[in-house]
This record gives sequence, structure tokens and C-alpha cells, in this order.
Amino acid sequence: MIDLNADLAEGYGRWALTDDEAMLDLVTSANVACGFHAGDPGIMRRVCDLAVERGVRIGAQVSYRDLAGFGRRAMDVPAGELADEVTYQIGALQVFARAAGADVAYVKPHGALYNRVVSDPEQAAAVASGIRHAAPGLAVLCLADSAMHQAAGREGLAVVAETFADRAYTAAGTLVPRGTPGAVISDPHQVVRQVVALARDGRTTALTGEPVPIRARSLCLHGDTPGAVDLALRIRKALQDAGVRLEAFV
Amino acid sequence: MIDLNADLAEGYGRWALTDDEAMLDLVTSANVACGFHAGDPGIMRRVCDLAVERGVRIGAQVSYRDLAGFGRRAMDVPAGELADEVTYQIGALQVFARAAGADVAYVKPHGALYNRVVSDPEQAAAVASGIRHAAPGLAVLCLADSAMHQAAGREGLAVVAETFADRAYTAAGTLVPRGTPGAVISDPHQVVRQVVALARDGRTTALTGEPVPIRARSLCLHGDTPGAVDLALRIRKALQDAGVRLEAFV
Amino acid sequence: MIDLNADLAEGYGRWALTDDEAMLDLVTSANVACGFHAGDPGIMRRVCDLAVERGVRIGAQVSYRDLAGFGRRAMDVPAGELADEVTYQIGALQVFARAAGADVAYVKPHGALYNRVVSDPEQAAAVASGIRHAAPGLAVLCLADSAMHQAAGREGLAVVAETFADRAYTAAGTLVPRGTPGAVISDPHQVVRQVVALARDGRTTALTGEPVPIRARSLCLHGDTPGAVDLALRIRKALQDAGVRLEAFV
Amino acid sequence: MIDLNADLAEGYGRWALTDDEAMLDLVTSANVACGFHAGDPGIMRRVCDLAVERGVRIGAQVSYRDLAGFGRRAMDVPAGELADEVTYQIGALQVFARAAGADVAYVKPHGALYNRVVSDPEQAAAVASGIRHAAPGLAVLCLADSAMHQAAGREGLAVVAETFADRAYTAAGTLVPRGTPGAVISDPHQVVRQVVALARDGRTTALTGEPVPIRARSLCLHGDTPGAVDLALRIRKALQDAGVRLEAFV
Repeated sequence: MIDLNADLAEGYGRWALTDDEAMLDLVTSANVACGFHAGDPGIMRRVCDLAVERGVRIGAQVSYRDLAGFGRRAMDVPAGELADEVTYQIGALQVFARAAGADVAYVKPHGALYNRVVSDPEQAAAVASGIRHAAPGLAVLCLADSAMHQAAGREGLAVVAETFADRAYTAAGTLVPRGTPGAVISDPHQVVRQVVALARDGRTTALTGEPVPIRARSLCLHGDTPGAVDLALRIRKALQDAGVRLEAFV
Repeated sequence: MIDLNADLAEGYGRWALTDDEAMLDLVTSANVACGFHAGDPGIMRRVCDLAVERGVRIGAQVSYRDLAGFGRRAMDVPAGELADEVTYQIGALQVFARAAGADVAYVKPHGALYNRVVSDPEQAAAVASGIRHAAPGLAVLCLADSAMHQAAGREGLAVVAETFADRAYTAAGTLVPRGTPGAVISDPHQVVRQVVALARDGRTTALTGEPVPIRARSLCLHGDTPGAVDLALRIRKALQDAGVRLEAFV
Repeated sequence: MIDLNADLAEGYGRWALTDDEAMLDLVTSANVACGFHAGDPGIMRRVCDLAVERGVRIGAQVSYRDLAGFGRRAMDVPAGELADEVTYQIGALQVFARAAGADVAYVKPHGALYNRVVSDPEQAAAVASGIRHAAPGLAVLCLADSAMHQAAGREGLAVVAETFADRAYTAAGTLVPRGTPGAVISDPHQVVRQVVALARDGRTTALTGEPVPIRARSLCLHGDTPGAVDLALRIRKALQDAGVRLEAFV
Repeated sequence: MIDLNADLAEGYGRWALTDDEAMLDLVTSANVACGFHAGDPGIMRRVCDLAVERGVRIGAQVSYRDLAGFGRRAMDVPAGELADEVTYQIGALQVFARAAGADVAYVKPHGALYNRVVSDPEQAAAVASGIRHAAPGLAVLCLADSAMHQAAGREGLAVVAETFADRAYTAAGTLVPRGTPGAVISDPHQVVRQVVALARDGRTTALTGEPVPIRARSLCLHGDTPGAVDLALRIRKALQDAGVRLEAFV
């Protein structure tokens, strides 16, 4: 059993990015942008409506306030400000999710914030605090064993670990850092093989050849290029053919 | 019995504007800016917390998206976009109001949007639709007999008419248009006299001398200058001395 | 002899829109977005560099401040503010044009501002004033016989009238209003025929059948879809085959 | 001989911050905000006009793009983007300075960017590159012996070191870090004494008691509170009484 999540609603006004309709047919959880790095109110409403129609879970993809940089530029936001900015974004999405007949079920940090809270305990604590302030029942989708994972636990939030279809692992079970040769898997067949191994067997083969156990309840798919949608479709079919049940984690 | 409302949380980041603490001791309803013309997440949270401590009702002061113009520049926003922008702002405030232990109780359009929906049925309908989408139980604070008043009624929303302490009335019971000599009352004594007449007797004297009945359940005070806070204090005392009960409308 | 202009640099950060490279091979004048409706500093620099390499003239595509609405929502900006916002945008582009070895040669209002200054003398005067404040030698690219045309003339600015490849004309020589059946020409052959007639003969056939003289020194092409680039290429070839010289107006 | 500089034009739309008129009577150089952390086009134009009337030099106070955080939150902006953002801001100010009859004479990084380029060689190089791209003749106002100082030198830009009226020095001639007891001098008499010693004698007394030579061609004054304006006035008079000539550095 595994959850498939993807970043959606990442257009803004005149600009489109992700193929939201196509991806909502493939995923079980939708990480909806909330206006700080992408996502205007109109696209947020439409994606919430479509997600509820398809039974897809809605999550808040919270970000630094940075439209020009698409949330990809790390920022030294003081903890109190960051917590409030996270709460604000969740609230802005909750209203559309509730109007559609569902609710925001989880939160996933976006871009530079996602990377920062892997190892920054202060920002991780701020994000966790902002989430709990919005709703104590929200789950947090993040990297296993990260500062975010720990901070969420300390706030009493449920935590769900995710993995990536196209990233290689070390023998220690961590992601091979981007920039290292082989860190990103480009062969679609190998991507599909790894995904099935992760989801069915709870393990994969490290870049250095050793078998390595990986626990992840969710798998992150990309949807911002036509090729990515095709790959997502193949992954979904391979998982179903392997007898893996696709199901949201909340 | 009358409600006193004021625009609050109208700072943004480093910039302050309204004396929120002083005004929250005087009003019964706080129109909280939601980030589109003013109001960052931190000031929204603080004003919600303080309002709940003092038993002040929380309303969403929704605006066109226009920080540079403080929401004072009318915009031809298509109806669907406007409705979604209104819903988004309400949601962003609801999360802070609820975390503080209360809820958003009403909505008041701000600035150019307030003026536009007096007479523009399309934008008024869009605002009403965006409010109902956020929560059907929300009241709308606006001018009596305006397009906004009618549109809110059509959506099944409660409507509350407000009046202004410092604006003169015509014999027909409408506001004397700004720009007309005498439209704005500058003498504090006369302001206080009119307010007491409006609240206690349900009438005032028109600019042209006739007595004129005015029904308003709420009175708008200004809090963005030190002198305005003093005037608000005098108005509050005069109303209490006249035996008028100060009470929120929701 | 005719100029071909197109709106370019209309991406923003992560978001792309126009195929700037393809269009810069086809046009003689580039209307570069300046950051208010689209156009981040990076895309502005790159388009200026490419335009200078290809000998394409650089114009400032000035807009209302409205990223969320892509400048397509008319705004009641007070005249002084609007003039300053226009000047600011021109300055922000001048620095990149000059660093590339050229200069901003003209200004074209964008979207809702373009439409507004066709008939609003106050905003047209504000735009003209803002342009002259930036540089009195700038030309203005706009609709013939518009309020913008007249205001620019009053400020002593050169004015260049443009026409559109795909819009039908009335017998009086004005554009058939959008919404009227036949207002937009969808058949590519007819578009090409009209363009050649306009550029070579200074006339076209009105929607109602009469021949109608049209004077336009520039023709606006669209570049925000793949099909639009192909059509632009066909128009360019047809004009060259008809012996029309393609040349910027400044 | 010393230059007095201050951060000006730091309002935005409805919000005011610095008392620009009062400060322009006291300083010889005005660091004008350019729209990224503060400074709308209207306030930029007005401050440029007033500065030229008073013979005050105009500098571009460039910042990270962060209105909500007033440019006080450090950002990991990629070098190329940062350079382009710096160039854009300078261009936006140049047009107003030139329309007023002067030009932008220097650049001073603001807030978190100022602090970052003290020690970050990559961002310092990006800022220097963005400045040179705008105009090779621009001077850079920054901390002596900083990464910014070195990067500006490598780009061939003139560099001017500044000091602060209210900050204590170590025996090594560096600022005592904020947070250390005694780092900020709060006694106005002591502030004035240090300023005169710095400007007339090129030295001050370290927090630990030793005399320490300090070379600074410019002194930064604050103007964002009424008390700050009074202190600036006293500093100016004390310097004049001590025979120090007040003169811009460019």
C-alpha cells in the first residue's frame, strides 16, 4: 500500500505550470500551492473541487513568500513570522477544501523550505508550530529522519515519510545528494523498478549496490512536464500490476 | 443599542498604521485586514488574539489585491476571480480567529471595493458569492440600500447597515457625496451630537436642515491617527452617557 | 515598409509564456514586459541582449501593477501615481537596454491599460506624462485616433499607429468591437491577405465589404502559443514576398 | 571632511516611515529605497526631486525582493538573479534621478543584503556585477574590509567605507557584534563624542578602552523615528562646530 502525491495548482494568474487535471487522475494526494510561491485563489478552488470529485486527498503545499523565485530561494525568516505565514497559507486553502466538501488533511513544505527543514531545527519547529496553530489534526509529509519529522512529532502532529521515484539511495538509506553522479535516475525502466521495489518490498538497491530497506508511506511524482505525466502513468500502472494498493495516508 | 466597528491590522511588515491596541478597547467589532491591501499574517494573528481577549467580534476586511494602492484603486476584476479572492481572504483570517477561540463573524469590503459595491451589481454579487462560498453564516457590513446590501440578501446572508460618525446626510437619508461642501463634519462636538442622535433616536439632521430617520446597527470609527483615537473615545463615552448599549451585531 | 512588433518577456520567474527566441527572429520591435504584469529582471536582461544581437528595437511594455491579473484588469489609478509607475517601468528597462548597447526606443501600454487609454483622456495624459518624464525622445505605440494618441502628441512625443493582423475593420476604419461576429479573423489565409493589403496598399476590406484605407506603421503579432509563432512566420514571409520592407519605426 | 548618509523613501503607498523632508536638510547623501523592500515610484520621485533641490547626492538602496520582511530576511538568491535584481533597482531609480537633473551616484545594499555581503563572497560578487552592469561609474557604500568592499574593487567600482554613529568598536577596529553588552551606544552625548572623534581625528575609543584608528568617509544616520531626527541634528551641529566639513563623497 502506498500513497502517490504531486505538487499541483502551481500556476498563477495567466501562467500555467502543472497539468492538474491529468495528475489528479493519477495521484491519491494533491499538494496544493497556497499563493506564496504559486497558486492564485482561482486555481486553488478549481483543484480542490476536482480533487474532491476524484476522492483525492488535499494537502497544503506551504512555502516562503517568494513568487519571483517560486519558493526556491531559502530565506532566514524569523521563527514567529514563519509560523504565522504557514498558518495563513493553510487557512487560505482550508476554506476552498471545506467549500468543496472535504478538508485540508496534511501539509507539505515546498522547495527551499522543504530542503531547509530537513536540517534546520528552528525553522522546522516554526513550521510545525504554524501547522498545529492551524489545526492539530494535520499530518506532515516530509523526509524521514529530518528535523521536520522530529519537530512535527514534538508538536503531536502525525508524520508521513515520503520517497522519490527518481532519486538514488546510499547504503545508509539517505538520498544521494544532488550533484553526485547517479543521484538522479534518468532511465524510466529503472525508475519503475525502484518504485515497485520500494512500495512492495520496502527496499531498494543503493547506488553502491547494497540492498537497503526504505520505509515510505508516500511517493512523490512530478507533473510539471508532459513527459513527467507519462512517467507518472507508467509508475501507477506498474504499482497496480505488482499488487500494490494505492491509497492516501489520511 | 449600537455596534462600533473600526478598520484594524492595517500595517504590513515593518509598517504600522492603526493603533490596534487602543482601538480594541473602544470597539465592539474589528474589521481585520487580510493581506490584500494590508495585514500580514503576524498582525492578523495578534489582532485576533487581542480581540478575543476583549470580547470584540472579528470581521474580515476584504479588498482588491493592491498593496501599493492600499486597496483604494477600483479594479475591474472579473466576477469569478473576485469571488475567489474574497473567499481566500476570509479563509486566511478564519484560521487565526479560530486558533484564538472565536470565528470570523462578518465581512466588510474595504476602500475602493466598498465604494464600488455600493452601485455595481456584478461586483456586489461576486463579493456575496465569495462570502457564501466561505461560510453561509457570515454577515455583511455595508451601506444600507446599496447593491451590496441587495446582493448579500439574495445569497441568504445577513446584512448589517452601518453609518459614519463624521458624514453629513441628505434629506433623503443618503450620504452627502464627498466633495460637496459640508459633506464631512469636522467639528468634534457636532460629530458626537450626530452619533448620539443616530444611535439613540434613529435619526439625524440633514445638511439642509430637515430631520431624517437613519437606521444603522453599526457605526464606523477611524483609528489611523492619534486624534482619531481620542475622538473615538469621546464618541464611546457620549454614547454610554446617553444610555446607548454598545454591542456587536453578531 | 512596415514594422512588426510583439509582446515579449512575459514570463515571470519559474513561469514561461512567450517564445522569445523564436519571435525575436521574426519581429523588428520587441515590447518588453517590465515587471508589473510580467517580466522579471532576468528575462528582461536576456530579451534585451538577444534583441540587440538581432538588431530588434526595444520598447517598454508598461502595465498596471497586477501580476495576479496579468495587467488585464482595468484600475482607477490616480493620474500622478500612474505617471510615476510608468516612469519606473521605463527606467527599469532602460538600464538593461543600455547595458546591451541600445536604448528603450518606444513605449506601448499593455492589456487593460492599452484598452483604457484608447478612450480615457486622464489616464492617457498620465501615461504620456510618465513617458516624457522618463525621456522626451520616446515614441508611443498605440491605436490611431485614440486618447493615447492625442495625449502623446500634446506631450510632444512621437506617435506610431499600429494595426492587428487578425482583427476586422468597420467601414469607418475602426476595429470591429470584440464580441461582434466576425470581429476576429480566424482563417490564416484571410489574416495573411489582410496584412499584405494593409502593409502594401494601406487599405483593407471592411467587414461590411467596403474598401477602407488604414494607415499603420506597425503590425502587432502574437507569440504566446506555438500556432501563433507559425502564423507570424507566414505573415513575415508573405510581406517579404509582396515586396514590403520590414523595418522598425524608430 | 565627512559625508552623512541616511536611508530614505522607505514608505510604501499608504505607509510612511522615514521623515524624508527633515532628513534631506541634514544629510549629504540619500540612500533611496527602490521598490524591493520599500519605496514606491511616487516616493522615489519626490525624494529625488527634493534631494536635487538641496544638493544632496542620490544613492540606490538595493535590497532583496521582500516587502513583507522589509528586506531584513537573508535570502539565498542565485548569483545571476541577484545581479539582475540589483541592476533593475538601480535602473528604476536612475530614471527619477535623471528626470530631477542629477543621477544615481552610488549604491548601498540594504538590511539583510548589507549584512550578507559583509562576509558572503558570492553574493558580494553578484551585487558588484549587477552594479557595474547598470553603470561602471557607480560607487559602493559599505563596510570597510568586507567581502562587498573587495568584490566592488574587483569590478573596478569605487568603494566608500561608512561608519555608524551609535555602534561601539573593538580594539581591532571592527564593530562589536550586536547582542554583546555595549554594542549599541544609547547615550546621545557619547554618540556625539564618538562621531566627532571619528570624523575629525579618524579614531575612537574601543569598548575595551584602547584608542583605535577608524577610516570612514561616510557616517550613517537613522531617520525613522522623531528622536532619530533630533539626534541627527545634534550630530550635524557638533560636527560643524568641530570644524568638520560635511560633503558628499561623490
